[in-house]
Amino acid sequence: MTAPAPAPLPRTGIGVDVHAFAPTGTARELWVAGLRWEGEPGLVGHSDADVACHAACDALFSAAGIGDLGSHFGVDQPEWAGASGARLLGEAARRVQAAGFRIGNISVQVIGNRPRLSRRRDEACAAMSEAAGAPVTVSGSTTDALGLTGRGEGVAAIATALVITRAESIEEGTT
Amino acid sequence: MTAPAPAPLPRTGIGVDVHAFAPTGTARELWVAGLRWEGEPGLVGHSDADVACHAACDALFSAAGIGDLGSHFGVDQPEWAGASGARLLGEAARRVQAAGFRIGNISVQVIGNRPRLSRRRDEACAAMSEAAGAPVTVSGSTTDALGLTGRGEGVAAIATALVITRAESIEEGTT
Amino acid sequence: MTAPAPAPLPRTGIGVDVHAFAPTGTARELWVAGLRWEGEPGLVGHSDADVACHAACDALFSAAGIGDLGSHFGVDQPEWAGASGARLLGEAARRVQAAGFRIGNISVQVIGNRPRLSRRRDEACAAMSEAAGAPVTVSGSTTDALGLTGRGEGVAAIATALVITRAESIEEGTT
Repeated sequence: MTAPAPAPLPRTGIGVDVHAFAPTGTARELWVAGLRWEGEPGLVGHSDADVACHAACDALFSAAGIGDLGSHFGVDQPEWAGASGARLLGEAARRVQAAGFRIGNISVQVIGNRPRLSRRRDEACAAMSEAAGAPVTVSGSTTDALGLTGRGEGVAAIATALVITRAESIEEGTT
Repeated sequence: MTAPAPAPLPRTGIGVDVHAFAPTGTARELWVAGLRWEGEPGLVGHSDADVACHAACDALFSAAGIGDLGSHFGVDQPEWAGASGARLLGEAARRVQAAGFRIGNISVQVIGNRPRLSRRRDEACAAMSEAAGAPVTVSGSTTDALGLTGRGEGVAAIATALVITRAESIEEGTT
Repeated sequence: MTAPAPAPLPRTGIGVDVHAFAPTGTARELWVAGLRWEGEPGLVGHSDADVACHAACDALFSAAGIGDLGSHFGVDQPEWAGASGARLLGEAARRVQAAGFRIGNISVQVIGNRPRLSRRRDEACAAMSEAAGAPVTVSGSTTDALGLTGRGEGVAAIATALVITRAESIEEGTT
């Protein structure tokens, strides 16, 4: 008689992303957490530079163990060039599920002087949750005028995600 | 016959905080991880600038999806002005539980040249665990003389938390 | 009749590490994520400066609540001086298991301009998973030319880990 295999645990994933502000005078929209922030200086990048969505994608991919933002949506995959962060997050969630995982939740913190997340936090949570098809919480913080974000050079985001293999999730649900 | 809903997963949350050291010559106590560090230069901030407790609060709030440090204890809530990090962490834990969650654990890393966490790590874990009413582990690291913490401009802390909805937690306990 | 205690949750842990590049002209091998990166400038440190393995160790220790990299392998424990990151990770995993925990998974992101993780990501995942005896996923990111990693001063890594007490894990497996 063999001891049964221990039940799978949920899997944790982490992702960090940073984008620089566009030079003053550059016409560039700011997109963070799936929202357009009007009247705010934009971030530069091949895509819309949505650090919150990008960090969330990387946390999901890493939790599932299926690569990262670069391997899924990198420069060698031109069909994703210029895609919005929300669209990338939706596709990342789809790929993680296709790989056999259920998404528990994603937690994202946006770190920077601007935009002021607090003004539209609920809206940001709703936009990213809608994109991911799973609960995403978004918070904001600053670094007390220190470092790259405190000096206003760019914005950072950090995300953690929790996923579980679908088989286990179904088993849990039926017993 | 409908398939039963999959069991809820624990929820992950992340939080980062940074505070700058007070200018040399300023009389300011250093509080980190719920402890006073005598003879060490202090950090500035509206509160006691306890980066470890603040990061832990943000990780908890984000895991539970109920806002962040600013929305709970911000400048528009003057009753919390000057509150200690430990007191904020206690109140954050209370609010997360009131929102229907059980706290699994919180992991915090303090990143900076000073204070040397290693000297009092057990005490720091005990102080923060007592404040949160849940297991909190505290570790310390440095950044090899690089960046804002390596140059001694400030101290950073990063925290992850795990919570689960109370309903699920009770169900798990009784079946 | 007493209500049964709620089931233990998995425990989350976080770890960050940073090492500086060796001065130009210094002969120093680059080791990151358990791999040697030939032809790349090396990182300095008492050990092999493998930021990915070090961050993973700290995430594991913190999840299990048994100290940190410094308390396990610090300068007061000379037998670990010069040990490779992979060897430290293997020993960290052994100590976490000896303390009564099962390791779920570890997620690591390497943040820096070099090395380009994408070239050898599968190899990095395999090397670290082998060292830890548990699934480790490794991803890579950059900080858009900003901050200590963007300026090429060093490399950072950030890791999260999930562990669960062995007792609970066995109980889960047998019911």
